[in-house]
Amino acid sequence: MVKRTSLAGCECPIARALDAIGDWWSLLIIRDALLGRRRFGEFQKSLGLARNILTVRLRSLVGQGILEMAPASDGSAYQEYVPTPKGRGIFPILVSLQQWSEKFDAHPEEIGTILVDRENGRPVKPLELHSSDGRLLGLGDTTLKPRPKSPLRAKRSNPEMFPRKQSGPLRR
Amino acid sequence: MVKRTSLAGCECPIARALDAIGDWWSLLIIRDALLGRRRFGEFQKSLGLARNILTVRLRSLVGQGILEMAPASDGSAYQEYVPTPKGRGIFPILVSLQQWSEKFDAHPEEIGTILVDRENGRPVKPLELHSSDGRLLGLGDTTLKPRPKSPLRAKRSNPEMFPRKQSGPLRR
Repeated sequence: MVKRTSLAGCECPIARALDAIGDWWSLLIIRDALLGRRRFGEFQKSLGLARNILTVRLRSLVGQGILEMAPASDGSAYQEYVPTPKGRGIFPILVSLQQWSEKFDAHPEEIGTILVDRENGRPVKPLELHSSDGRLLGLGDTTLKPRPKSPLRAKRSNPEMFPRKQSGPLRR
Repeated sequence: MVKRTSLAGCECPIARALDAIGDWWSLLIIRDALLGRRRFGEFQKSLGLARNILTVRLRSLVGQGILEMAPASDGSAYQEYVPTPKGRGIFPILVSLQQWSEKFDAHPEEIGTILVDRENGRPVKPLELHSSDGRLLGLGDTTLKPRPKSPLRAKRSNPEMFPRKQSGPLRR
């Protein structure tokens, strides 16, 4: 596997998310985990990945806290990979990718599945972004601004300036 | 650049989106384009990518219809890369990645920017997924089902069975 430049130290939350997830294949592993797949063999069969590559990616997803290992639910000796809350939190990312394909794919007739409401089987609506007072927001309605920094949230790279033990009084 | 296995022929819309976008770096190029960067030099400065790699990725994004080339807005000889509607449609994907970082990053204090409402500068709300009748949906409330196939939407790979010229009458 090719080592990518790490984006972990970036300030951009998008780059940080990309770094944590790892790569496209890892996102498809997470997709499978959210669809209920649990075992190495299930992922391998679904994705057609080589064992060594799948091993490395699963290990990375566990290391990132996206999947966790658990004893097999049927009591057998197998280990299972179960999405954590952080892993389940990837759901909107997958939905956004799915909906982008549905809207813009040059050959939508090749798409095999649609995301539906479990209750009535009808397609879900497009993801919506709202302002704090409830207005629907699009790209042009938003902007980025620097995150306010507080001493309690100082950068790890500068631990001497704001050691954890001194932050107690500020928390009162 | 390493050639990845193409996911273009997959039925999964998520895999198809990943294939069209290309890779993580390409998503950061799109992020920059949606933030208003237009020129090769701007992308290069922002991302720190080698010229040859950036060239290949920009070409791929143009080929996928995500960016398009346009004469420089200041009348100079430079070419600019401008997001198409398909490119602007990637906005929710970027928002979902940003919000996942904000919620689950192990070191959120390192995140440098927040996405805010341009009108009042306040942070936006988390993306919401709703059912066709307006209920808020989470992961457990949804499922995938096969997309209904119609003769008009037959697979490209089987052009002989449903040639376009014969589909006219069915459209009436």
